[in-house]
Amino acid sequence: LSKKIIGVIGGSAGDEKVRKTAYEVGKLIAESGAMLVCGGLSGVMEAACKGAREAGGTTIGILKGQSISDANPYVDIPVATGLGHGRNLVIINTAGALIAVSGRYGTLSEIAFAIQSGKQVFGLGTWDIEGIAKCENPKEAVEKALQACEI
Amino acid sequence: LSKKIIGVIGGSAGDEKVRKTAYEVGKLIAESGAMLVCGGLSGVMEAACKGAREAGGTTIGILKGQSISDANPYVDIPVATGLGHGRNLVIINTAGALIAVSGRYGTLSEIAFAIQSGKQVFGLGTWDIEGIAKCENPKEAVEKALQACEI
Amino acid sequence: LSKKIIGVIGGSAGDEKVRKTAYEVGKLIAESGAMLVCGGLSGVMEAACKGAREAGGTTIGILKGQSISDANPYVDIPVATGLGHGRNLVIINTAGALIAVSGRYGTLSEIAFAIQSGKQVFGLGTWDIEGIAKCENPKEAVEKALQACEI
Amino acid sequence: LSKKIIGVIGGSAGDEKVRKTAYEVGKLIAESGAMLVCGGLSGVMEAACKGAREAGGTTIGILKGQSISDANPYVDIPVATGLGHGRNLVIINTAGALIAVSGRYGTLSEIAFAIQSGKQVFGLGTWDIEGIAKCENPKEAVEKALQACEI
Repeated sequence: LSKKIIGVIGGSAGDEKVRKTAYEVGKLIAESGAMLVCGGLSGVMEAACKGAREAGGTTIGILKGQSISDANPYVDIPVATGLGHGRNLVIINTAGALIAVSGRYGTLSEIAFAIQSGKQVFGLGTWDIEGIAKCENPKEAVEKALQACEI
Repeated sequence: LSKKIIGVIGGSAGDEKVRKTAYEVGKLIAESGAMLVCGGLSGVMEAACKGAREAGGTTIGILKGQSISDANPYVDIPVATGLGHGRNLVIINTAGALIAVSGRYGTLSEIAFAIQSGKQVFGLGTWDIEGIAKCENPKEAVEKALQACEI
Repeated sequence: LSKKIIGVIGGSAGDEKVRKTAYEVGKLIAESGAMLVCGGLSGVMEAACKGAREAGGTTIGILKGQSISDANPYVDIPVATGLGHGRNLVIINTAGALIAVSGRYGTLSEIAFAIQSGKQVFGLGTWDIEGIAKCENPKEAVEKALQACEI
Repeated sequence: LSKKIIGVIGGSAGDEKVRKTAYEVGKLIAESGAMLVCGGLSGVMEAACKGAREAGGTTIGILKGQSISDANPYVDIPVATGLGHGRNLVIINTAGALIAVSGRYGTLSEIAFAIQSGKQVFGLGTWDIEGIAKCENPKEAVEKALQACEI
């Protein structure tokens, strides 16, 4: 494959500040030439897709439900799994490295699955657990995630 | 979503003639502007992706395993599900309509799941069961699948 | 494991005659000392569980949804997968051999997955496709399925 | 369903002390008349199943692989999902409440999925995150888990 794929994980809610961070993450992923994979719904997922789309990138949305029409409007490639929360594993297997933005228990389960699967996770204002690499800002997170994909 | 997604299902083996049919199907899907989704591996899947790629289309490969490196070289968007045969359901949920080319039991299970899920299946030299619309050639199959996506 | 596990597949509808056949299959499985695994819902699944329960057997219901309360009243061991149709693969992986009673496309997809997975399928008034062993009556189907589990 | 189902989660490794705790948890679940569901493999899972089996209980093992022969010898009801880590969701959907014993990232992902799914999790020497109810000993954990199932 010629392109890296970076996963962005985070909640379907998220206040203005969190969505701004996610938007920036998506934008920087697209500017690097990498693709973005996420859960394809609202909140952090939508903001990240919007950032990537506006920078000319490609966004993959791995959906919980059975219909591609559930995807947010900034998803280029909708994948309807019908697996519910099980779709989180598909995101993690598909991404070369992950960036977690804020989030609650769904995000925590994704972080834990990712670390268990040997994928590196870079955190922006998310759960502070052993195994996550805390980052200061979107730029640091995206740069480190791109490097982690090379390994 | 601005683009239709057509699923192509069929075996990972497949003789010269079957692969030529699959290639033609992929080419016609791409020429119509639709995206192609398949299992991302060899045989019918690879031939269809090659046809679509060479016509400038976008190919999505929904893989059985946990690594995107399993995808054939003509897959643009690899999705690593880690679900084994369960990935067939993801293909069917993602596609608006499906074209079955030859194939054995894996293809039959996909055909049956598709019909059960209310998706139309167009057949080219595949299982002759009630519920499949048999087609004479790739052109007929792709045209009908594109129409079925509109409904 | 000390006990064989026989899968029973078939539709959630099913007329009186079909349900009577499924009941008999369940009863004979239980009388042999084997366990029964099925989709845990209505129709063929419920009739088979009822037959097994009334003969003192153990019934496992692999459910589509996220709640064990979806199980029919004759399921001893409810398993809530949350996987939708994907639960069919769990039934097939768990069973040593399968008996298909009547059924439509959901059953056909299970039959095809089973054959693809190398499990033998014994049919009672179900799809007539290559690879299924057609049986005359519940007794023949259960005896042959028990033998197939030994291999 | 007449019986409660308690989930036990924890790693496939685990030292002597951890396995002793898991054994005790399994024993107390069985003595209460509840069933035990777990991942069916080694370490905490095996110790808990052994405790339950020796107290006359019923143990359900939700396996990662496609073969029921992967189950530890104390599993009564093996369920082969073929879903890899995705089987964790099946454990959580099936259990009325969960007890986490020690464990690393696999356990953390299960804990997070459980809380996200609205299931209560009782912890014995495991991750110390918001949302888990820390318990002093197996007796406290099993009593509280049984109560949580009633809600």
